[in-house]
Amino acid sequence: MSLYSHILIIGCGLIGGSIARAARQYGLADKIAMADANADVVARVKALNIADSVSTDARDLAAQADLILLCIPVGAMGETAAHIMPALKKGAVLSDVGSVKGAVIDAIRPHLRADVHFIPGHPIAGTENSGPEAGFASLFNERYCILTPPDFNDPDSNSPDNNEPTKLSEAALILQNFWQAMGSIVAVMSAQRHDKVLATTSHVPHLLAFTLVSTAVDMERVTNNDVVKYSAGGFRDFTRIAASDPIMWRDIFLSNKTAVLEIVDRYIEDLSAIKRAIRWDDGEQLIEKFSKTRNIRRDIIEAGQDMSAVNFGRDETSNDQ
Amino acid sequence: MSLYSHILIIGCGLIGGSIARAARQYGLADKIAMADANADVVARVKALNIADSVSTDARDLAAQADLILLCIPVGAMGETAAHIMPALKKGAVLSDVGSVKGAVIDAIRPHLRADVHFIPGHPIAGTENSGPEAGFASLFNERYCILTPPDFNDPDSNSPDNNEPTKLSEAALILQNFWQAMGSIVAVMSAQRHDKVLATTSHVPHLLAFTLVSTAVDMERVTNNDVVKYSAGGFRDFTRIAASDPIMWRDIFLSNKTAVLEIVDRYIEDLSAIKRAIRWDDGEQLIEKFSKTRNIRRDIIEAGQDMSAVNFGRDETSNDQ
Repeated sequence: MSLYSHILIIGCGLIGGSIARAARQYGLADKIAMADANADVVARVKALNIADSVSTDARDLAAQADLILLCIPVGAMGETAAHIMPALKKGAVLSDVGSVKGAVIDAIRPHLRADVHFIPGHPIAGTENSGPEAGFASLFNERYCILTPPDFNDPDSNSPDNNEPTKLSEAALILQNFWQAMGSIVAVMSAQRHDKVLATTSHVPHLLAFTLVSTAVDMERVTNNDVVKYSAGGFRDFTRIAASDPIMWRDIFLSNKTAVLEIVDRYIEDLSAIKRAIRWDDGEQLIEKFSKTRNIRRDIIEAGQDMSAVNFGRDETSNDQ
Repeated sequence: MSLYSHILIIGCGLIGGSIARAARQYGLADKIAMADANADVVARVKALNIADSVSTDARDLAAQADLILLCIPVGAMGETAAHIMPALKKGAVLSDVGSVKGAVIDAIRPHLRADVHFIPGHPIAGTENSGPEAGFASLFNERYCILTPPDFNDPDSNSPDNNEPTKLSEAALILQNFWQAMGSIVAVMSAQRHDKVLATTSHVPHLLAFTLVSTAVDMERVTNNDVVKYSAGGFRDFTRIAASDPIMWRDIFLSNKTAVLEIVDRYIEDLSAIKRAIRWDDGEQLIEKFSKTRNIRRDIIEAGQDMSAVNFGRDETSNDQ
C-alpha cells in the first residue's frame, strides 16, 4: 500500500519534477497530481508524463490530495497556500521544500486551517539545472531532508538534561517515511536552527560565489576568455554554484535576511583582517588562519566516513592552485 | 629516446612527487633525481622508490641535471636557485611549478647565470593532499600548464594586428613537450598576465574559501557538528578548497599581493552592494546580479565541450540549496 493515496506537487521545477519521478518509481502514492502557474511548464510536464494529472491552477487538484508539497520559490509560498487552503480536505498534510523555514512559516501561518497538518520541510539537494526536465528520481538519495514541525523544540546538544527530541505527530512520521523512501536522511529541528545552519552551510557560500563571479565578469583586464579557459582553478567551483536559479536565490536571501546578513558582516570583517595581513606581509597570521580551516575539513571527512550514507566522494583532483 | 637525460626535482611534495612518477611512467628522463631539505621527506621518498637518487642537498645532484624543476613554496625559490646555480651545467634548463610567476622571476633573476635557460612554469593541477605519498602520475592529465618565458610578449587578443605569439626557444619547446607528454595542455603567456588571470580564477577564490570556513568556525551558535553534518551545501566546496597547504597559500597571497588585493577590494565593494540590496529588499538588483553570473557558467560549459581535453565533468549533483 502506498504511503499516500493522492499527492499534489505545486511547482514543477527541478525539485517538484524529481519528487514526482521518485514518488512514482518507489510507489509512494496512488495518484500524483502536479500544478504550475506557468502554462508552458504545464505543457512540458504533460509531455514528460511524470504525473497523472496536471493543471495551471493548483486549487483544481487540491481537494483530493492527502499530501500537498509546495515546491515553489519561497516568496510565493504564502499566496499559494492562501489560494489552495479553502479547497484542502480535512486532515490533509501541507508541506514545502523551501530553503528557508522561518519566513515560509510566517507566510503560511495566517492562512492555515486548524484541520490541516502543516509540516515544513527542506530537502538539501539540487543541481544547477532548473525546470521539470532537470528532475530525476534519485536526486534525494543519501541527502539530508530537514523537517521543521512548528512546535518542535530543539534538544540542546550542550545540555545532558534536555536531549529528548519532541515527539513527532503521526502525520510527521508518515512524511518522514515518505522522504526516507526517496532515499533521504531525515533530520528534525526548529525552523530557527535550520535557518542559522543553512545560512552558514549554503546561503552565504552561494552569495559569495555569486559575488565573486560577478566581480570577475566586471573586470575588464582579465578577459572572459581567460577566466573561462583557466577556470579549472577554484573559480570553477564558484561558477557552478553561481549558476543556480536567480529567483530562487533572491527569495532565499531576502527570506533569511537576519542570519545571512549576520554572517556576511562577520565575513567582511574577517576578510578585511586577512586583506590587511596580506598588505602588511603578516605571514604568521595567514598561516594561523589557514591552519585552523584545515581541521574542519578533516572533521567533515571523518563525519562522512561515519555517516556513510552521505556522499562525500567528490572529485578531489580539482583543488588546483 | 627520453626528452632529458637527467632531471632534478627539488621539493618532494604533491607536485614534485607526481612529476617524478609521471616522468618515469612515460619515460621522459633516463635518470630522475629528487631533493628535499627535510630529511624525513627524503627518507619517505626513498621508501616510495619514485626516484633514482635522493638527497637533502639539491646541490649534490645539480651538476648532472639537464632539467631542474623547483617544486617548492614560492617563498623559497630565490634562495634555492642561488644555492644550486654555481653547480648547474652549461645549457641546463631551470624551471619551476610556482602558482605565482612575477615574484618567482624577481626572486630568481638576480642569481641567474647567462648560460642557464630559465623558463618558469605553472601546472594548474593539485589536490588538497600534500607530501610525496599524495603524488600520482596522472595528476597533470588534461590540465593546463602555463609557461612564462621571461621575454614573452602576450599577443593582444583585442588587436588583430598583433596576434603573433613570441617564437619559443628550443629549450622552451622541449619543456613544452615534457609537459604535453605528461598529459598537460600547454599555454604560453607573460608572467604578468598569468598572475592576473590566476588571481581571479584561483587565488582569490581560495582566499574567500579560507575566510568563510574560518568565519564559520568562529561562530559559536552554529556548532561545528551542524556545520559538518549539513555541509552537503555549498559550504562543502569551500571546506575542500580551504583544506589546502597553509604555507603554500601564504606564499601565493604574499607573492601575488598586487593582483590579489585589487580583486579583493573590488569584491568587498560588490559584496557590500549586494548586502545593501538584501537589507533594503531590493530583489530586482539581486536578480540582475545573479542572472549575469549564470552566463559565464554557460560559457565555461561550452568551452569545456570545445576543449574536450579539459575535465569539466564534475559531480553536478552537489549544488544544493
